[in-house]
Amino acid sequence: MSTLETRMREIGKGARRAARALATASAEARTQALRAMARRLRDKIRTILESNADDIRRAESSGLNESFRDRLQLNPERLTALSAGIDAIAAIDDPVGVVMAAWTRPNGLRIERVRTPIGVIGMIFESRPNVAADAGALALRAGNAIILRGGSDSFASVTAIVGALRAGLADAGLPEDAIQAVPDTDRDAVGMMLAGLDGAIDVIVPRGGKNLVARVQKESRAPVLAHLEGVCHTYIHADADPVKAVAITVNAKMRRVSVCGATETLLIDRAVAPTLLPEIADALTALGCALRGDAEARAIVKMDEANEADWHTEYLAPVLAVRVVDGLDAAIAHIGAYGSGHTDCIVSEDLAAARRFLTEVDSAIVMHNASTQFADGGEFGFGGEIGIATGRLHARGPVGAEQLTTFKYVVHGDGQTR
Amino acid sequence: MSTLETRMREIGKGARRAARALATASAEARTQALRAMARRLRDKIRTILESNADDIRRAESSGLNESFRDRLQLNPERLTALSAGIDAIAAIDDPVGVVMAAWTRPNGLRIERVRTPIGVIGMIFESRPNVAADAGALALRAGNAIILRGGSDSFASVTAIVGALRAGLADAGLPEDAIQAVPDTDRDAVGMMLAGLDGAIDVIVPRGGKNLVARVQKESRAPVLAHLEGVCHTYIHADADPVKAVAITVNAKMRRVSVCGATETLLIDRAVAPTLLPEIADALTALGCALRGDAEARAIVKMDEANEADWHTEYLAPVLAVRVVDGLDAAIAHIGAYGSGHTDCIVSEDLAAARRFLTEVDSAIVMHNASTQFADGGEFGFGGEIGIATGRLHARGPVGAEQLTTFKYVVHGDGQTR
Repeated sequence: MSTLETRMREIGKGARRAARALATASAEARTQALRAMARRLRDKIRTILESNADDIRRAESSGLNESFRDRLQLNPERLTALSAGIDAIAAIDDPVGVVMAAWTRPNGLRIERVRTPIGVIGMIFESRPNVAADAGALALRAGNAIILRGGSDSFASVTAIVGALRAGLADAGLPEDAIQAVPDTDRDAVGMMLAGLDGAIDVIVPRGGKNLVARVQKESRAPVLAHLEGVCHTYIHADADPVKAVAITVNAKMRRVSVCGATETLLIDRAVAPTLLPEIADALTALGCALRGDAEARAIVKMDEANEADWHTEYLAPVLAVRVVDGLDAAIAHIGAYGSGHTDCIVSEDLAAARRFLTEVDSAIVMHNASTQFADGGEFGFGGEIGIATGRLHARGPVGAEQLTTFKYVVHGDGQTR
Repeated sequence: MSTLETRMREIGKGARRAARALATASAEARTQALRAMARRLRDKIRTILESNADDIRRAESSGLNESFRDRLQLNPERLTALSAGIDAIAAIDDPVGVVMAAWTRPNGLRIERVRTPIGVIGMIFESRPNVAADAGALALRAGNAIILRGGSDSFASVTAIVGALRAGLADAGLPEDAIQAVPDTDRDAVGMMLAGLDGAIDVIVPRGGKNLVARVQKESRAPVLAHLEGVCHTYIHADADPVKAVAITVNAKMRRVSVCGATETLLIDRAVAPTLLPEIADALTALGCALRGDAEARAIVKMDEANEADWHTEYLAPVLAVRVVDGLDAAIAHIGAYGSGHTDCIVSEDLAAARRFLTEVDSAIVMHNASTQFADGGEFGFGGEIGIATGRLHARGPVGAEQLTTFKYVVHGDGQTR
């Protein structure tokens, strides 16, 4: 067995031991640990920034572009916000032990469905070191241990952040191994996590580019909570309020173009395209957004031609595909054919049309008259998110603390036999 | 592409089309279809029994043992019970469209978590043809399509049963392809289902022996709801009521030895073993149960020796492993080390001890003073079960109609942007 393999197995065993301890710790102990983690993170801002500067220097020496630097770089404001985020997670209700349902059978058996932690989460992520703090805090809120494997570029930053979190756990008397960073930048570590570390990992959460997520979905032995991509749609129905249509489309596309909830394709009803599309296009163009349209859209507004590939594309950039559709059914059919099951919105004042859209579009999140950029655990009131899932089992949509739990059945009898 | 492959893909496409139609059908339409299915099944009893006789003849010509015949054989009573079971499923609440939670955000967004069907279920099972009817009915109650692949021994019986179910679907105006049987006994069909039929299968439910389940868990591309085995424990605590201890142990082991909720290992506290174990052993022996004990148990009652392998074994036979333990912690540790996370019970009048057992034993079902044989969807009030799951994600314990659903978030706005 290689040295790395031995170390990874130790990490797995440590995580399992910590998970057992966390599962029976009190909600109050987890809350205290979260507050201590937030405090330690604030106290260590200088150390973490030094480690981050090391990462940035290393990245610069091998050449880095601006968006990569933006993802990697930390600053006092970001770290203060991160610490405040952990305090916010400390303030949400602890999900562990909650009785989700309870009923009594005719034979007198009382059955309860009780929330329990999942166990050990394996998280594989890229470049943004702050993900380590969000994920560690949410995992702990739900009573889980977590093993974090960031990109090699952010190794020093992640190690420093995880050091602060572990100090907080120790302050509260909880096992430090509840949050571990894989201590080796060796790429083989990812493969070992995907193989499950001898069953020590109960669920894998990948967060990063499409290549990373696709690899995890293909190779992981443990179940995966993830989304491969967010090809999100905003559909302007014939009965849309024009003011809402413009405001929602602009926000859904341009508020931040790099998030998975950003709208990538605009669908607009033939009936209103001639009047509404020019106004929407002007507003987007003014913000630097390029449009690519089908023939009908281009007959109304001058823009580049969209080809079949555009309907499938998650640009994550100031580019919007535009298609004129022949009403609600055509919009639903387009989303069914090209969407990624992430987030899709209808803009309409017609409640019956909205109801059909919300029922028939089979995505994790469906919206009526709201920006698709609300697809976010924080915006949903979950106190944060470890990611967004588009799989059909267990968790769909934003994955917060509650979604990082499972349940068991507790059956109370008085001697019943069958 | 082989002929089989072409046919399997057609089945996958048909199931997906049917699932789309079912998801938007009314609860009432699904209820009507279930009632029609029950009726068609009653009407076709003679035809189904003829097909079953064919299966039995074929099995006899290749030699079959008694327990195999028992699993394969249908009779009018079994079929009538099967039909009544479908009527019972028709009577339970339809889970689709239920708002599981709803809340309003400070910005006015109203968020609902709404139950939706999973989509297409792939079910792979062995020998018991009646599983086809239970699974088909539960899948439909939850708005799912299902693809059924029974063992080649039960092929004629399953085809006849599925024919009746499909006739019921047609009676109610729902697509017959909501329930399909794989029309080929070729073993390659299983591999194709595990490969997911081009993404047409959303979840796989295997039901059968350990080899089948292990293969499915190893090879399936889609998530799996299953249990590999049920190494269930009954633990007699020092403060157990002797009458309950005897009754529960005997029922948990001997009511039916071939079910996954049957107790396989008896743990008994050292303090009460000398007084209680002889009585329990007598009652079990009188019913033909063989005991295998550790040294302490054998010092109290004459029985065969249990070795390390016995603690891991799901006998599914009138055999019980017996171990004397040194109190609650030792019992919990034994179950953690040897259990399969299925169902475990404590017999005790000490509520604090029971509470610790119920919290700390990490199994899908934990019980206090009740027979482990209650681990069953029907007994839980689910109207039936498609199987029992020991995985940690999505569904744990009995998988009924509700567990065959997922959810989506429906966000109601009034023009909100972020």
